[in-house]
Amino acid sequence: MIVVKVGGSVGIDLAALCQDIGELVRNGQQLVLVHGGSARTNEVAAQLGHPPQFVTSVSGFTSRRTDRETLRIFEMVYCGEVNKGIVEMLQAQGVNAVGLSGIDGRLLSGRRKEAIKIVDERGRRMVLRDDYTGTVEQVNTSLIELLLENGYLPVITPPAISDQNEAINVDGDRAAALIASSLKAEKLIILSNVPGLLRNFPDESSLIRQIDAAQVGQFMEHAQGRMRIKVLGAIEAIEQGVRQVVFADGRIAKPLSAALAGGGTVIG
Amino acid sequence: MIVVKVGGSVGIDLAALCQDIGELVRNGQQLVLVHGGSARTNEVAAQLGHPPQFVTSVSGFTSRRTDRETLRIFEMVYCGEVNKGIVEMLQAQGVNAVGLSGIDGRLLSGRRKEAIKIVDERGRRMVLRDDYTGTVEQVNTSLIELLLENGYLPVITPPAISDQNEAINVDGDRAAALIASSLKAEKLIILSNVPGLLRNFPDESSLIRQIDAAQVGQFMEHAQGRMRIKVLGAIEAIEQGVRQVVFADGRIAKPLSAALAGGGTVIG
Repeated sequence: MIVVKVGGSVGIDLAALCQDIGELVRNGQQLVLVHGGSARTNEVAAQLGHPPQFVTSVSGFTSRRTDRETLRIFEMVYCGEVNKGIVEMLQAQGVNAVGLSGIDGRLLSGRRKEAIKIVDERGRRMVLRDDYTGTVEQVNTSLIELLLENGYLPVITPPAISDQNEAINVDGDRAAALIASSLKAEKLIILSNVPGLLRNFPDESSLIRQIDAAQVGQFMEHAQGRMRIKVLGAIEAIEQGVRQVVFADGRIAKPLSAALAGGGTVIG
Repeated sequence: MIVVKVGGSVGIDLAALCQDIGELVRNGQQLVLVHGGSARTNEVAAQLGHPPQFVTSVSGFTSRRTDRETLRIFEMVYCGEVNKGIVEMLQAQGVNAVGLSGIDGRLLSGRRKEAIKIVDERGRRMVLRDDYTGTVEQVNTSLIELLLENGYLPVITPPAISDQNEAINVDGDRAAALIASSLKAEKLIILSNVPGLLRNFPDESSLIRQIDAAQVGQFMEHAQGRMRIKVLGAIEAIEQGVRQVVFADGRIAKPLSAALAGGGTVIG
């Protein structure tokens, strides 16, 4: 069993991924797909007059400012447009996909952050209290396994649900890492719009091909921007028992087959 | 087992319905919820610069003009905003809801209309060929029963999926009728923003309280606008073996309890 996370950045080819999944599933590969939708959320939020904002935490991670109106738009794009678009494409490949958010059946549950400590553009520290972001702490593996055992392919997307039953924006890479470890998956494959972890971002020829599991923490220094949280997800997955994590290119034909054949950055 | 359909028209109180479902489920009532989202789809489509259009078929039924862009917006609102909003509210009531569209697991499958014969405002007949609307012909009851047997409450929304694996806009009332008959439900309760079927629409004091199942066809003459397709759904449900169909008010507190206590228009 493998868990595949595909990002929502510009350039990622979801149609190519769905076609690839179709072939792999027909050849007996069991998998769970987790996806994002950030670029489309930015576009739709702007069109709806509620432009996206991003904040940087004091520990240096960037995340989407998620007030209640942003959460509504986030659900429209992630759970509506992107999730159902993927399910429709997989159905066309003969894959009986079922799309679920983290709030459905409490698939992804966790803690809403009561306060987020951020640093503004001028370096000042501030505290946000009306933000609906959080961290996944538990995966409802019984629901995922129920679907897998009955021939369905789960297609999972944030948001998650908090202990107080609020929808919360959670990071998709870290959610996929916890899904992979909770399901005792052999591999977690994270597809994005770069070929993998680059020694000198954005120089794609500087791709790091192999990282020993014990050394992954040291590679955080090479991660820029959104790749930082992907490396964090990889560290968490490895710590929680996933044997291999692969960062691979989601812009190419047969992206998953390429990653399974050793492409990208292989950790573990 | 009962099937409840709640419309997406202005005035319907989804929060009151979810609270009512919470109490009924705690008292042992098993149910499946089907919902719409038409009013919000109209608003969002207008905001996104793709205003809604409606067409009238030669048989007198009004439906949404659904080109591919409308379908995308339809999925954002029905499967994203409305479905996940309901699931979140049910979770807050302690109900372990799982939201699914008709394309997930081929829950609702059917036929896309190759051509829709419409009448324009000037009474001229025209044929539409690029429309993604259709009719549900089959319900994947095994997926619904799998969820029910494992303690989940299914929250189901259009679109459905066609034989050619296209998402198709289908009527929610008729879909709910087929879900009810396929599950051999005792009752189908259709909540909308009127108290039931009115002898003289919109005079709410002219509510028809009881219709004999054998006579329901004769009551089509009293149905105006969107109520026409609800009566068609009721006829189909009764013909397919559902013992009782209730049209009831979705704007009030405890709307479902009121319908179960004999409120609204009871057919059968």
